Amino acid sequence: MTDTAIVAAMRRAIAESEAAQGFTTPNPPVGAVVLDADGEIAGVGRTQPPGGPHAEVMALRAAGERARGGTAVVTLEPCDHTGRTGPCTQALLSAGIADVHFAVADPNPDAAGGAQTLRAAGVDVHPGVLESEARSGPLKYWLFRQKTGRPFVTAKIAATADGRIAAPDGSSQWITGPQAREHAHEVRGRLDAIVVGTGTVLVDDPSLTARRPDGRLLDHQPTRVVLGLREVPAAARVRDGSAPFVHVASRDPRAVVDALPDALHVLVEGGPEVIGAFLAAGLVDEIHAYLAPTILGAGRAAVSDESVATLAQAHRFRRSGLLELGEDILLILEPRRSV
Amino acid sequence: MTDTAIVAAMRRAIAESEAAQGFTTPNPPVGAVVLDADGEIAGVGRTQPPGGPHAEVMALRAAGERARGGTAVVTLEPCDHTGRTGPCTQALLSAGIADVHFAVADPNPDAAGGAQTLRAAGVDVHPGVLESEARSGPLKYWLFRQKTGRPFVTAKIAATADGRIAAPDGSSQWITGPQAREHAHEVRGRLDAIVVGTGTVLVDDPSLTARRPDGRLLDHQPTRVVLGLREVPAAARVRDGSAPFVHVASRDPRAVVDALPDALHVLVEGGPEVIGAFLAAGLVDEIHAYLAPTILGAGRAAVSDESVATLAQAHRFRRSGLLELGEDILLILEPRRSV
Ligand SMILES: NC(=O)c1ccc[n+]([C@@H]2O[C@H](COP(=O)([O-])OP(=O)(O)OC[C@H]3O[C@@H](n4cnc5c(N)ncnc54)[C@H](OP(=O)(O)O)[C@@H]3O)[C@@H](O)[C@H]2O)c1
Ligand SMILES: NC(=O)c1ccc[n+]([C@@H]2O[C@H](COP(=O)([O-])OP(=O)(O)OC[C@H]3O[C@@H](n4cnc5c(N)ncnc54)[C@H](OP(=O)(O)O)[C@@H]3O)[C@@H](O)[C@H]2O)c1
Repeated sequence: MTDTAIVAAMRRAIAESEAAQGFTTPNPPVGAVVLDADGEIAGVGRTQPPGGPHAEVMALRAAGERARGGTAVVTLEPCDHTGRTGPCTQALLSAGIADVHFAVADPNPDAAGGAQTLRAAGVDVHPGVLESEARSGPLKYWLFRQKTGRPFVTAKIAATADGRIAAPDGSSQWITGPQAREHAHEVRGRLDAIVVGTGTVLVDDPSLTARRPDGRLLDHQPTRVVLGLREVPAAARVRDGSAPFVHVASRDPRAVVDALPDALHVLVEGGPEVIGAFLAAGLVDEIHAYLAPTILGAGRAAVSDESVATLAQAHRFRRSGLLELGEDILLILEPRRSV
Repeated sequence: MTDTAIVAAMRRAIAESEAAQGFTTPNPPVGAVVLDADGEIAGVGRTQPPGGPHAEVMALRAAGERARGGTAVVTLEPCDHTGRTGPCTQALLSAGIADVHFAVADPNPDAAGGAQTLRAAGVDVHPGVLESEARSGPLKYWLFRQKTGRPFVTAKIAATADGRIAAPDGSSQWITGPQAREHAHEVRGRLDAIVVGTGTVLVDDPSLTARRPDGRLLDHQPTRVVLGLREVPAAARVRDGSAPFVHVASRDPRAVVDALPDALHVLVEGGPEVIGAFLAAGLVDEIHAYLAPTILGAGRAAVSDESVATLAQAHRFRRSGLLELGEDILLILEPRRSV
C-alpha cells in the first residue's frame, strides 16, 4: 500500500466521521475505511448511535469478503474493550485485516490497548496518520472531554457590528441574516446541548431546536438546558417534547457541566448574563460571534460580565476562524490559554 | 496603440494617483501616463499639492520630447480651465500629444469641456477607460464632493468583539493590536480631517496625527477637528501645532461639514456620542470597524445613538470589505442607500 493511498483513505475516514458528530455521544465520532488487498476502497463506515456498531465494524460489513488480507484506516485507535458492542480489534482480526493505520491513539484506559492486541495477533499497526487533522476535526470534542472531564463549551453571540443583541424596546429579530441563521442551526445539529438563561426563555420563548431553512427538524436534536433560579413555564417551547429538556435551577455555570455528564460539546447561546457567567468561570473554549453589518447605538450589549473592571481583566482570545455568511461574518475565537 | 497597452497604462495611472491622495485637496488626486509614439511609457505623473502642476503636466515633463505624436492616459478628463495653473488641454496640445484616453469625465462645469477642446484641435479622444475602477479608487472622495457638496465621511471604531471601546475604569489602551493601529495611521495620512468630540480630547488628550510605527509623522497631516461646546484646553495635544486645528463649538455634525468647505474625505474617530450624532444625522458614508479578539463584557459601547428605539430604526449597512490585520479584523461597511 502506498503512503498516498493511506493518507487519501484517512482523509475519507475523517470526512465520513463528520456526519457522525452529535450522534455518537458519549462515544467518539470515528470514521473508518477498509481497503482490499489491491488497495481499492472496499468499505466506509462511521460510528453509529450508542449501542450500535463502531466505525470499523460498519466499514468491515460494507467490505464483506474483500476485507480479507486488506487494510483498515481508522481515525482513532481501534478499541479493545467489550462495552455494549464487542471490541473492534476482534472484528478486524476475524475479518482477516492485515494492516491497520490509525490517526489518534485512544487516551481512554478502558478502551486503549487496541494497537498492542492487534500487533500481538500479527497485524501490522501504524499509528499517527494525519494525526493533527484528526485531532482538530470531529474527534476534538471527545478528546477534550477525555482530557478535562468536561464538555467543550462554545459561546455564541449574534450581534450588530457595535455589539448589540437587541434594541431598547427589546426587538431583536432579525439582526443576522438567513445564511448566518442556517449556519447556526447546522452547528446546533452537531452538538449535545444548548444552554440559555431563564431570562432568554421568559423574554423570547425560543424553541432551541436545530432546524432546516424550511423549518423541519434536523435529524439530531441537542438537549435544551435552561440555567437560572426562576421556574421555566410549563408552556415554554423548550418543554414541547421535540428534544430533551433540563432545567438547571442554579446560577453556577459548573452546575450545567455537572448536569451533562456525557456531553462532548455544548453551546451557550445567551443571553448576555449567562455568557458573561461562563466567561467569568473560565468555561468558554470557543466563541462564535455572528456580526451583522448593522449599527444600533443603543440597546442590550451581547455580553455582560460585571467581574471585569479594567482592560487587563478582559477575556483575551485569538482568532481561529473568519467566515463570510451572506451579509454577515462569523468570527471564531479561541482562548489564548491552551488546555 | 493596442487596447491592452492603454488599459495597462490606465492601471499604472490609477496606482500613481494613490500616492496623491490627501495631498491635492481641494483638487482631485489624478494620475497620468504618457506613452511615446511606439507605445512605450515615456512619463508618469500625479497631481501636485494645490498651486503645483496637475498630473498631465507632470507626466509630460517626464516624457519631454518623447511626448510628440504620443498618447496621454489620464484618470480624469483633462481640465480646460485656467485656475492657479494653466489648462491641461493646452499643455497636451503644445506637447504634440495625438491621442488622449481618460477614465472619468469631469463633472465640474468650470473644468469640463476638455475632451471637446482636444477634439476640436484634432486630437483623438477616448473616454471611459477603466471608468468604474477609477471612480471607486482615489477619485471616489472628490467625485462624492462634486455630487453632494460635502466631504465623504468615514466613521472609525476600534472595539472588542463585543463592541466595547473602554473598560469600566476607562482603560482603553490597547484594545487593537499594532497592525490595526498602523493601518489606521495610514488611513489618517490620506485624508483631510479627523473629527473627535470634546469628551475624547478631555479624557484621552490624543494627538490625532498620522504617524509611522516608529512614531515619526507621515508626510501629510489631516486637520484636527474637535466638536463640542466645551473649551479645548490650550495645552491639549491637538493644539500642539504639528497639524492644523479647528474647534467647532457646536453639537451639530453639519457644523463640522460647514467648517471644512474644501475637505474631500473626513474621518470621525469618536467617541461614541459623536459617532452616534453623525449616524443620526445621516452623515456617515462608510464605517471602519477594527475588532479585536477580546471580550470585555463591561465598559463603554463603541456607538451611542439615543435616537434608535427599535430594530427597524437601526443603521443598516452592507459589507464592502473585510481585512485580517494581525489578530484583529477590519470590517468595512457602506450604507445601503446609494448617493
Ligand atoms: N442575539 C443573541 O445571540 C441572543 C441570544 C440569547 C438571548 N438574547 C437576548 O437576550 C435577552 C435576555 O437577556 P437576559 O440577560 O435576561 O438573558 P439570560 O442571560 O438568558 O438570563 C438572565 C437570567 O439568567 C439567570 N442566571 C443564571 N445564571 C446566572 C448568572 N451566573 N448570573 C446572572 N444571571 C444568571 C438569572 O435569572 P434567575 O433569577 O432565574 O436565576 C438571570 O436573570 C433577550 O432580549 C434576548 O433576545 C439574544
Ligand atoms: N476606541 C475608539 O475607537 C475610541 C475613539 C475615540 C474615543 N474613545 C473613547 O471614548 C471615550 C470618550 O467618550 P465620550 O462620549 O465622552 O466622547 P466624545 O463623543 O468624543 O465626546 C462627547 C462630547 O462631545 C460633545 N458633543 C458634540 N456633539 C455632540 C452630540 N451631537 N451629541 C452629544 N455630544 C456631543 C459633548 O460635549 P460638549 O458638552 O463639550 O458639547 C459630549 O459630551 C473615551 O473613553 C475614549 O477613550 C474610543
